Amino acid sequence: MAGDINSVDDLRTVLILRRTSFIVLLEPKCSQKFNLLKAWESPLPQDQFLSTHARSVRVLLSSSTGPPITAQILQLLPSLKFIVTTSAGLDHVDLVECRRRGVAVASAAKIFTEDVADMAVGLLLDVMRKISASDRYVRDELWACKGDYALGSKIGGKRVGIVGLGNIGLQVAKRLEAFGCSVSYNSRSEKPSLSYPFYSNVCALAANSDALIICCALTDQTHHMINKEVLSALGSEGGAC
Amino acid sequence: MAGDINSVDDLRTVLILRRTSFIVLLEPKCSQKFNLLKAWESPLPQDQFLSTHARSVRVLLSSSTGPPITAQILQLLPSLKFIVTTSAGLDHVDLVECRRRGVAVASAAKIFTEDVADMAVGLLLDVMRKISASDRYVRDELWACKGDYALGSKIGGKRVGIVGLGNIGLQVAKRLEAFGCSVSYNSRSEKPSLSYPFYSNVCALAANSDALIICCALTDQTHHMINKEVLSALGSEGGAC
Repeated sequence: MAGDINSVDDLRTVLILRRTSFIVLLEPKCSQKFNLLKAWESPLPQDQFLSTHARSVRVLLSSSTGPPITAQILQLLPSLKFIVTTSAGLDHVDLVECRRRGVAVASAAKIFTEDVADMAVGLLLDVMRKISASDRYVRDELWACKGDYALGSKIGGKRVGIVGLGNIGLQVAKRLEAFGCSVSYNSRSEKPSLSYPFYSNVCALAANSDALIICCALTDQTHHMINKEVLSALGSEGGAC
Repeated sequence: MAGDINSVDDLRTVLILRRTSFIVLLEPKCSQKFNLLKAWESPLPQDQFLSTHARSVRVLLSSSTGPPITAQILQLLPSLKFIVTTSAGLDHVDLVECRRRGVAVASAAKIFTEDVADMAVGLLLDVMRKISASDRYVRDELWACKGDYALGSKIGGKRVGIVGLGNIGLQVAKRLEAFGCSVSYNSRSEKPSLSYPFYSNVCALAANSDALIICCALTDQTHHMINKEVLSALGSEGGAC
């Protein structure tokens, strides 16, 4: 595909459709190296704007919170050769249409995996050890008048169920082991190379867990997977992060 | 020493000097099994109260937030044989005087070690990933009007200095390793069996760390050990938990 790109200049023009928070972060560095074509700065409607630049746009910078890169948008950009997205997932990109048109797609892939796992474990600690709740208690000046805040829950020995044991789920499990938690999981398929107990059913996993950590993508298949039945199985003392 | 205790009844009377939050937690269960002698419920001054019960008190239940068990108190309780304290440390008990008088002392020892380590790592995650700060941001309804909260700091790769590598420090280190942090430490003496880099000086440790976690007891020796010089060495981006 490199042969299709005629000069370095072609790659210097980078189309961005919407100014999402990720784009705001990237803008200062990107604008030093690239000629950013910002659709939101144009008074033209998006379709008309894309048609105007149809021939020059070879690179599109996207993010999962921006507009989806649909077949319709791809059709308006016949010279497009490369989409870079700041997200790990590619649900917002019509990959079938990209393949058909020979458009290469690059995502952030695993770059956020460890940070997401850190955050998930941070939130579990926050809920179980009541960190932000007791922080509010102190800031509201209740410590002096109402005494010590209620104790939190022990982390060690807790049964934590991970829903979706992909890259992020595995990093969460690794961290939880260091805290002495016992990990089980639900996933599309059992992973025979791992020793964690597998539950083919989210409800059964919840019934055998003190807390659930959801590490799967939000798709049509996973939408509403954590429902009333799963939360009831988890019990009133349980928590889902 | 068992020969000094004449009957089971002697051990059923348990003296408590102050109603601390720990005692409040223990009271319901303890009062089922023991006859709790509560000094704070008496109208008498403490010394007079202790003199009144001098012969019957063989067991004292104490906590680190209660009054220190000084030589003076021990002198008023000549029949005392056993002190149980709810704390891990024994700084509030005059151990020399206890030994001289043949009073046995039991502490909670390592029972809180893992919980304290969980909390320390939870606080580090809270500060670096801005968990309670962003929780406040959302509760103050600023998300909708001011947009996404500022990003936190990556945990992986951070250099964390542990001041005091005892039981708690080791448990903190174990958890930090799972997050991909690089651990170094300062302690009274180097521990040759461990591979973590040792700094004999807290300031040098701080200068080579992104965050410090203090895991040593507060004693006359450690008081003010984390001073302006140490915080300056840590730098404006650093944090001490």
